[in-house]
Amino acid sequence: MSPNTLLTQTLTAITPADSAMRQQARARLDQLAIPHGALGQLMDVAEDLAAITRTMTPSVKRKAIAVMAGDHGIVAAGVSKFPQAVTVEMVRNFLNGNASINALARQVDASLTVVDAGVAGDLTELYQHNALWNRKVAPGTADFSQGPAMSRAQAIQCLEVGIEVANYLAETTDIYATGDMGIGNTSPSSAIIACLCGCDIATATGRGTGLDDEALNNKIAVLDNALAINQPTADDGLDVLTKVGGFEIGAIAGLILGAAALRKPVVIDGIISTAGALIAASLSPACRDYMIAGHCSVEPGHRIALNHLDKAPLLDLRLRLGEGTGAALAMNLVDAAVAVLTEIATFEEAAISQADTTITTPQSQENATS
Amino acid sequence: MSPNTLLTQTLTAITPADSAMRQQARARLDQLAIPHGALGQLMDVAEDLAAITRTMTPSVKRKAIAVMAGDHGIVAAGVSKFPQAVTVEMVRNFLNGNASINALARQVDASLTVVDAGVAGDLTELYQHNALWNRKVAPGTADFSQGPAMSRAQAIQCLEVGIEVANYLAETTDIYATGDMGIGNTSPSSAIIACLCGCDIATATGRGTGLDDEALNNKIAVLDNALAINQPTADDGLDVLTKVGGFEIGAIAGLILGAAALRKPVVIDGIISTAGALIAASLSPACRDYMIAGHCSVEPGHRIALNHLDKAPLLDLRLRLGEGTGAALAMNLVDAAVAVLTEIATFEEAAISQADTTITTPQSQENATS
Repeated sequence: MSPNTLLTQTLTAITPADSAMRQQARARLDQLAIPHGALGQLMDVAEDLAAITRTMTPSVKRKAIAVMAGDHGIVAAGVSKFPQAVTVEMVRNFLNGNASINALARQVDASLTVVDAGVAGDLTELYQHNALWNRKVAPGTADFSQGPAMSRAQAIQCLEVGIEVANYLAETTDIYATGDMGIGNTSPSSAIIACLCGCDIATATGRGTGLDDEALNNKIAVLDNALAINQPTADDGLDVLTKVGGFEIGAIAGLILGAAALRKPVVIDGIISTAGALIAASLSPACRDYMIAGHCSVEPGHRIALNHLDKAPLLDLRLRLGEGTGAALAMNLVDAAVAVLTEIATFEEAAISQADTTITTPQSQENATS
Repeated sequence: MSPNTLLTQTLTAITPADSAMRQQARARLDQLAIPHGALGQLMDVAEDLAAITRTMTPSVKRKAIAVMAGDHGIVAAGVSKFPQAVTVEMVRNFLNGNASINALARQVDASLTVVDAGVAGDLTELYQHNALWNRKVAPGTADFSQGPAMSRAQAIQCLEVGIEVANYLAETTDIYATGDMGIGNTSPSSAIIACLCGCDIATATGRGTGLDDEALNNKIAVLDNALAINQPTADDGLDVLTKVGGFEIGAIAGLILGAAALRKPVVIDGIISTAGALIAASLSPACRDYMIAGHCSVEPGHRIALNHLDKAPLLDLRLRLGEGTGAALAMNLVDAAVAVLTEIATFEEAAISQADTTITTPQSQENATS
């Protein structure tokens, strides 16, 4: 990579989250007028937010969801139930405000940006829409069961699309969420997870939009063969993205890198977004600090990827939709985590009696007097 | 029970949720422009809400959290780390707006009502506060390790306190949430769960606010002995409440019964609230239809009680605080469930191509041509 590209500049700008601020947040959380640690995972997220934003009063009010869209040549191998035309149809649905992510973005008061990172169909008539960005790298990836999904230059290009989106939205955004649309995109996601988590492709592959047993077995066989043909270099996120990735997955990885460089939190959605997160973490291990795992889906590879990233998901609602829906839902919990850090009084502030660490049980009384 | 009490009138008014409306909701959800069932548990809640409210466009905007407070004579047996004075101190903290439930109620835009159902300490100076109801049944229960926690008349009285709260709030409330405050109240909750779920007391008992091993073993021994002394009649919620319950737990059960009679949903919080839900379900099996399980806490008895009620919790965030915090957090997901039912277009409405249930894989092509 040349040193002056947007990608290299962004990677250079990423530093770990602030551990001193994390300690400061933990010290306050330890003093809240509740039994120690009783708000569980919300307290972990509260610490993360302090460390990410370098403040004890993080703001996550202004929310931006970016849905990256792209198509996949590998659908020719019969890996999805839905026709490729659905990618275009769903982009139109997003712009009309009638899709699931629209409903859930409204519920959490988040803006929605849709990016054509590589949709196969023609979206020309829709580019006039302010919420749709035309950053089409190519009309769909090549069929990676036959060779690489994209060129190395295209892989860098789609990463930079995501960074560009993060940078453009930065001025009006406190927290990002990732989303995806692309028929067939659980296939590259499972391939990426197998490469970067070092697991068997069969364990990382699921039914996607609803494959039956025969179609699932075909999907696994196609992906197994695709990995054998492409031989992606494990631990090299750029090579993995090039050989078995997708344009929208690269754009998601770029969005995460951009958010990390900007020191803003980014909520990760389902298996496709988490595959993007693996690519991002491979390029910049420190960017992991800026990720909040929104949920765990029913796709088996998702749990593997979250474990690899050492991220505990906030929700587990049997979701398997993508679009950013799980991340949007989790944003309410991120709001709640800020409230925990900033709005709850400590024992001292509220004048509450503390726990007696040497409580008297009948037995210990007997012991004391014996 | 005499036939003309508030309790008996309420029990008579409760009917099951509407299965025809549930079917109608399911029919629409099955047609949403998403892979079948891809919004998981949100779709289950959406069906529940339609069945509860008898409408395809349920409203859950106006949210009311009721925190029932009471004390427990059994703290004399060393079952809690915190002194009993904390119950009064926390009620004051609620009224000052600085507790966890205040922060999380604000985040979800819910009203908060605090009810003195049986606090041991004197709250006279606080009763002037509009958000605090004085419905003190008695200044704390009797120590149920020595005999019944309360009289049968008191059990009915605290149930009716909860019903009264539900009825009073009804005009301004679309959805309720339960909350609790009472030092020592995981002990009666575990005892209730053991009785009504038919499990061993040791499996239903946890560390509460943070007991160590010795104190946990003492708590289990105290409760085991208390059940032997009281011999509550399994499956008789009123007898169980009388012998091993708490005033705030009875009030929570009453709130749930009241909500069910009003055909409004009620989000159940942690182990104490779920013990109340078991009492309510024992008195009126149909009231179960109106419950939404907010979360599953780390208290081992909570999962047992949720399974007994056949309720899948929405959240699992290692919470163990009570106050209604888990229910408040879950209310955002209930809002989201309404959005799923009412704001997402169907395949037909959005003109999206549907899944091909006979997708062509290379293998099936071969089969077809062979």
